Formats: sequence, C-alpha cells, structure tokens
Amino acid sequence: MIVSYAELAGALERALAAIGLDPDRAQRGARLIADSTRDGVPSHGLNLFPRVATMIRSGAIDPRARPVRVAAHGALERWDGQRGVGALNAYDAMEAAIARARTSGIACVALANTNHWMRGGSYGWQAADAGAIAMCWTNTLPNLPPWGAAAPRIGNNPFVAAVPRAKGHVVLDMAMSQFSYGALALYRARRERLPVAGGFDRDGRLTDDPAAIEASRRPLPIGFWKGSGLSIVLDIVAAALAGGRATHEIATDPEQETGLSQVFIAIDPASMAGGEVDRIADAVIASVQARYPGERALAARNQHLREGIDVDDEAWAFTVRLAGA
Amino acid sequence: MIVSYAELAGALERALAAIGLDPDRAQRGARLIADSTRDGVPSHGLNLFPRVATMIRSGAIDPRARPVRVAAHGALERWDGQRGVGALNAYDAMEAAIARARTSGIACVALANTNHWMRGGSYGWQAADAGAIAMCWTNTLPNLPPWGAAAPRIGNNPFVAAVPRAKGHVVLDMAMSQFSYGALALYRARRERLPVAGGFDRDGRLTDDPAAIEASRRPLPIGFWKGSGLSIVLDIVAAALAGGRATHEIATDPEQETGLSQVFIAIDPASMAGGEVDRIADAVIASVQARYPGERALAARNQHLREGIDVDDEAWAFTVRLAGA
Repeated sequence: MIVSYAELAGALERALAAIGLDPDRAQRGARLIADSTRDGVPSHGLNLFPRVATMIRSGAIDPRARPVRVAAHGALERWDGQRGVGALNAYDAMEAAIARARTSGIACVALANTNHWMRGGSYGWQAADAGAIAMCWTNTLPNLPPWGAAAPRIGNNPFVAAVPRAKGHVVLDMAMSQFSYGALALYRARRERLPVAGGFDRDGRLTDDPAAIEASRRPLPIGFWKGSGLSIVLDIVAAALAGGRATHEIATDPEQETGLSQVFIAIDPASMAGGEVDRIADAVIASVQARYPGERALAARNQHLREGIDVDDEAWAFTVRLAGA
Repeated sequence: MIVSYAELAGALERALAAIGLDPDRAQRGARLIADSTRDGVPSHGLNLFPRVATMIRSGAIDPRARPVRVAAHGALERWDGQRGVGALNAYDAMEAAIARARTSGIACVALANTNHWMRGGSYGWQAADAGAIAMCWTNTLPNLPPWGAAAPRIGNNPFVAAVPRAKGHVVLDMAMSQFSYGALALYRARRERLPVAGGFDRDGRLTDDPAAIEASRRPLPIGFWKGSGLSIVLDIVAAALAGGRATHEIATDPEQETGLSQVFIAIDPASMAGGEVDRIADAVIASVQARYPGERALAARNQHLREGIDVDDEAWAFTVRLAGA
C-alpha cells in the first residue's frame, strides 16, 4: 500500500490520540514515527507502532506521562521518564540537552525509567536540524551474547552520533549487533546469505546463514570483542548517570521491555566553530569517496516524499483501524 | 630484558630530558609511556618512543611546546597543541576537561595541531583515577579503507570510554580497525591465522591470513560498514570542534603524522550519581560473566609490578643510550 507522508502522519496522530496521548504529544509522536518510516527505517517506525499500542494497553507504557528533571549538576541533568512513551521522552531529553548547550557549549541529559525510543537516529536528526552536534545512546533488554559467551547478557545498545551539515546531516545510527533479528529474518525470507558472518551456529561456528543464527540466538557484536566491550561501557554509563536500570535488570520479553536508561549529549558549535562544521564535513565526505552515515536515510526521504511510502499492509491496517475508532 | 617499573620510568625521564623536554614534562611523559608498557601495551608505550624521539629530532614535534586555550564557549573549549608532544598535550587537555566538569557537570576540550597520543587508554585511566567518566578520541593518518573502497582514506581513529570503579576502572580503548598493522605482524611472526577475518586479500576476498592483509593494505573496519561510518563521524567532530585537520589532510608517512585533532569529554558524576557508579558498574560486570574493558590492562599491571616488565630489547637499548647521553 502506497501512502503519502501526510496521510501516514495524520493516521498516526489520530491513532496515538485514540490510545490516550494528549493532542500535542500525539502530533509529535506521529511525526517521529512517520519520519522514521519516510527515512527508510519502517522497522523502527510504523512497523513498531503496534507493539507500542499493545504496551500502552497493557499498562507497560503510560501514554500521559511526561518526563521530569530530578537532579542537575551544571550542564549535567538527570531525568525520570515516568514510564512514558519512549520516543517522546527521548525527544524531550534531546531538546533539553540542545537548549542547555546553547549557554554551556556542551550539555548532557541522562534519562531513566523510559521505554523503547524506536529509531535512535531520530534524535540525531533532531539535534542536527537545530545546528547541534550530538551523541546519544540507549540500553536495551539482554539480546546479545558478550564476546566469549553463548547466552545473551548484554544489550545491542544503539549509539547515535550526528553532525549538522547544509547539504545533508551526518547521522550515524548503529546498534552493537552486526545484524538485528529483523535483518536476519529479512535475509532468510529472501533466501540469501548474509554479506559477512553475522553470528554463530548451534555448534559455535561463525556463519553467514541467517536461519542458523536465529536458531542459536547468538548474533555477533560489531567488531567481536570490541563491540562487546562498547556495549558494556554504554550500559554502565547510561544506568549510572540516569540512576536507572542496567541491561541485566530489564525484562527479556520485548513487550515487557521497560525502564530503559539513556544518555543525550549535545554540543553547540555555533559560537566557536560555526562556519567550520559545514566546510570540514563537506571536505571529509568528498575525501572518503564512500557512503557517509545518513546518506541512505536522506535518499530514502527524498524518494518517499516524491513517490509516497510503500507501507507494511498489516501495520498500516492496524493504524487506520485505531485512527478511525 | 626484564626491568622494574621504576627503572623504566627513570630511564624514560632522563631520555626525554635529553631530547629537550622540560623537567616536569619529562617526568609526566615518562610516566605515561612507562604506564602503557606496564599495562601490557608496549606497542603504544616504550616501543613507540624511538619514533617520538625521531620526530623531535626531525622537528615534526616541538619538545618544549605547551598547549594553549584559543577559544571557549561555556564548558566547551578549543585548544591548540602547538605541535607539542602528543601524549602531554592529551594529558593536559583531559586534565582541563576534568577540572571544568567539576563545576559544569560535563565539559569538552577539543585539541587541534597535536601529535600521536600514544596509548589512548592513558587518558581514560587518568579520568577514572580522578573519579570522572570520560570519552575521548583522536583522528589519525589515513590507514583504513572505508567500507566499499580499497584505498585507505579514513583513519583507525581510536575511541576511549572510561568509568571509575573502586575494584578496577572500566576503560575501553578501541581503534576502528579490527586489527592494527602491529597485531597483523605479530600473528604473521607466530605463523598463526587471525581468530576472525581481519581484512581483504589482493583479490578482494575476506581473509584471516595476516600476511595477505599486510600485502593488500586492506584491513577491515570493526563491524564493516558500521566502524567505517563511526570513523568518519569521529573525524568530522574532532576536526570541526578543534578547528584542526581532518584525516585526509594528514601526511601518510607515520614519521610525518602531525597536526592531529582530538576530543576529550569528561563527566563528573560525584554530585549526582556518586555512590551509584560503583554499585552499577559492579553489578553489570557481574551480570555479563565475560571480560570487561580494562580487565586485561589491570591484570598486566599487577603482574608487571610484581615480576618486572619484559621490555623490547631494541627500544630499551635506544632509551638507555639516550638516557645516558
């Protein structure tokens, strides 16, 4: 089914209002979900919306909660997400970090007690649109074996870094697993091998067979021992600064994955490095002669705004049903 | 040759003084180089010292230069390393970030015009010893092909993240290449295969043969496209905030690798998350049941302080010669 961006955002806004969000929150939430879908990441946009709706109905997510600041030390703030809608908590936390960075140059908001932020890249685009450099990350439920172990005891803890650029922001949005379970399922459905080894089979051998990794539940961290270590550090920093849960304290059922910890760091280069950011980013991208982070999202965005978005039929039908209720 | 930590640091201090460093700088520099060697990273400690000495003699490094602050916006500062000794510039930049974070919660020093910082982890240990959470990174000469290309057009841009912990700090020190050229040479000398694919051979096939990767000059970024993207973002942020060079502007000869850009971010958790950092880090490490970042360095440190350090004969002879001159 092909829909326009406006149709998609409109239906999502009505659906979010129908499940209990206040009007301003329904509008912001709809835009975040529609933007991710428009940018070619439906897995973390529209296709994830039914799970959010389920979690609101089950009480795991409070649709009316708003995040509150509970402590501050200079430009370092600690917020409580009150188990509200994860994407809205994350958006508000990044907004606060950007605003604080205007006066302090750099600022950090650590957010506890929140929920799945959907597409992490959203908050990178948000910062870059505001002219800020940003880094943010989240912990997750345990879904990845640490290097040297077979059981999933670390999170894939997506990490985002963003730089504003007039010709298209540079936005890296990268989970600590080489392939998500969603990606493995896609390769399997297409009867394709992975382009590189993506995990271990049941016998502990590295494999590029997506089904073998789905069966073993042993996907690989990026860079093997390196991504495993980075996941551990990101988890500790997020839980410690936010005063929230670490990965080992988070329920392993995705529909019960709540109480996450996240970190949002914004840097305002305007007064110090204003004109240079664009010039330097352009020169680096030209020199690399390879894809830069954010390039594919921007291409998908332009194409989808021109031609409409081919949405997942089931997720769309679910949304339209809710929107009309 | 087995030497004690005190002998190693003493010889390095005299050698650094002999090549032109002021007494306080020679002492600090000797400690940084000796610490890296003691912690099991001689490749970025003693074994790198002859190259530093060569670069001082050639004029690429100014042994008497000290870094200066050239701009500030709140807790965001821009420094010029004045082509001084890279390890000392980095140490001073991290000290300044830690000090500023005491009042502002978080602080960032971006350093341009500096030189190789030797072991990046040093500045993570430095921050953690001071009770600070830290992240820092450097760009490098172009030594890694971006994903999808065969020529080295990005840096391996080491990234460091550190968390203070009473039982042993958590310190991640990770370059964006899966294996350094030094590591490839070690595997080749031992006639071993790499534990995982580490690059492409001349025909563009992934391989675990270290010699084939040395021949092709095509090592792999960690996580393939992911580490490639992260390297690009880290380079842009470092060059833009520091107002310095990006990787494509840095000479490809290691003995001419100068004018690097680096970022040092420190977070002071004391007033907000004081007791929690230790408790949370301990709990995460216990839950993971795998090696945590920094564990191996601490074990090497304890062993070497007990039993002495088996130093590289050539680098040690070079140092002793300089020290006695």
